[in-house]
Amino acid sequence: MRLVTYRATVETAARLGAVVGDLVVDLARFGEAKAVPFPSSMLEFIDLGPQAVAIATELLDGCGGSFPLGTAVPLANVKLLAPIPRPRKNIFGIGLNYTEHVAESAKSLDTSADLPRQPVIFSKPPTTVIGPDEPIPHNAGITQQLDWEVELAAIIGTTARRVSRDTALRHVFGYTVCIDMSARDCRRAGQWIYSKGQDGYAPMGPVVVTADEIPDPQTLDLWLTVNGVEKQRSNTAYMLFKVDELIADISQGITLEPGDIIATGTPAGVGAGRDPQEWVWPGDVIVATVEGIGQLRHPVVAAAV
Amino acid sequence: MRLVTYRATVETAARLGAVVGDLVVDLARFGEAKAVPFPSSMLEFIDLGPQAVAIATELLDGCGGSFPLGTAVPLANVKLLAPIPRPRKNIFGIGLNYTEHVAESAKSLDTSADLPRQPVIFSKPPTTVIGPDEPIPHNAGITQQLDWEVELAAIIGTTARRVSRDTALRHVFGYTVCIDMSARDCRRAGQWIYSKGQDGYAPMGPVVVTADEIPDPQTLDLWLTVNGVEKQRSNTAYMLFKVDELIADISQGITLEPGDIIATGTPAGVGAGRDPQEWVWPGDVIVATVEGIGQLRHPVVAAAV
Repeated sequence: MRLVTYRATVETAARLGAVVGDLVVDLARFGEAKAVPFPSSMLEFIDLGPQAVAIATELLDGCGGSFPLGTAVPLANVKLLAPIPRPRKNIFGIGLNYTEHVAESAKSLDTSADLPRQPVIFSKPPTTVIGPDEPIPHNAGITQQLDWEVELAAIIGTTARRVSRDTALRHVFGYTVCIDMSARDCRRAGQWIYSKGQDGYAPMGPVVVTADEIPDPQTLDLWLTVNGVEKQRSNTAYMLFKVDELIADISQGITLEPGDIIATGTPAGVGAGRDPQEWVWPGDVIVATVEGIGQLRHPVVAAAV
Repeated sequence: MRLVTYRATVETAARLGAVVGDLVVDLARFGEAKAVPFPSSMLEFIDLGPQAVAIATELLDGCGGSFPLGTAVPLANVKLLAPIPRPRKNIFGIGLNYTEHVAESAKSLDTSADLPRQPVIFSKPPTTVIGPDEPIPHNAGITQQLDWEVELAAIIGTTARRVSRDTALRHVFGYTVCIDMSARDCRRAGQWIYSKGQDGYAPMGPVVVTADEIPDPQTLDLWLTVNGVEKQRSNTAYMLFKVDELIADISQGITLEPGDIIATGTPAGVGAGRDPQEWVWPGDVIVATVEGIGQLRHPVVAAAV
């Protein structure tokens, strides 16, 4: 299932939808028509557990593309929001998780050239999240080194506490795309939260693809362009710590909960690693894609003072 | 006002209370008796803004210590929980924010001996929070270097976005005590979230003292004992970056929201800085106090496997 959080142009409330062809099916209204109580938000849907995904998938498939009047609208008519517009805690970010990115970072940032022996974890507050097409604020009062990072993000579906690598992927609800914006000149004593945690620094979406449709998350191409010029291109096969390892590792000390988001790290090609270094500025447009999930497009704009 | 989140021994739901003498006044029930709709949780109360504090204070003061039957119970009869049992995002932690702690950290940890020029920020997930008297888990599978840090925590009351130092304290709802437990051997490539973010690593409470009762948060003694032996003693006067500076600084890039918690850093005397180094183990008891707010007492126990 391809799930979205969206706003129909004629109403203001955010709704949970499933994309079927060129339609968005309002899951709560569709559920009413089918006498199944689906919720109207992504987090509530995740909280229902895997059974909800199975039931919704079966009911949608059974419609053969024709849905009760009032339960579906053209995708073109809605505004997509971030799939989880307001996470319940900071996003878990993973640093230095692709070999070539470790090398480029060591050249220009204060990181080691040695491959990390354990996942390097940081966080991004819920206030970083913006939805598809929303502007990324460039706050010139704080940064002159705003950088891009395309990433696959995994969304936790069921509580994971000290899980093994073997069973870790069972705890994934689905996957989406995240751009881990990073103000390289805002690192402080090595800590990354101020660099990566500023308002609007986590564009996410456009859809969550449920885990049943991505049985192996380590086979996906991902790439990013700035103003149409390709800057990053790799495949999730090249992650140092795979999604199952990340979940198993984090969950040894930090319980992962439904709705938690793990941004799994970025491949080589960031601006900081280029010679000369490149940064984004107001007027630039970043487009980030993960194969099989979708594409985010974001203009960079001067932050409101 | 001294606010608590508590559970009366005869019921399971968490309630919001005000401590008056040796009583806890259930604010929602007290409000019903006074025809004022106070909520039953700390976060909802914070969301109402400063007016709610003023009204509640006036109504409580007007009772002269005698409250309508059913609205107050003896403090001794209730179980105190963390004031905000479930924060809406990670706690903001501040590292290296007392001069002598910077020096001791540089001796034993991988930090610089230079005083930071800007606040050093990290985060602790909501799953770190535990309430008064709850055991701190010692996970021997992960750490052999579990350390203590007593801290003053500031709780944000109103949204702060790019505020100045002059007006920053207006955005504080109140203050509480936090122990920033830290597994020193779980730092990874310098990032502290795994070291400081494990389950149960943020004991908090026992009360929130509203900001009107602490006009100057930089005058408070704070100290910590392990098994009755004093390990830390200082005063918030010695913070490098004062509470108003922290709020002003963070809010330049990261919008602070009602209910956000900032743990403002710890003074010298942590286990990592001692010669020989000291750590806590199952059976130890940590007691942390901030003057005028209260005392936390936590046994360390072996984590359930």
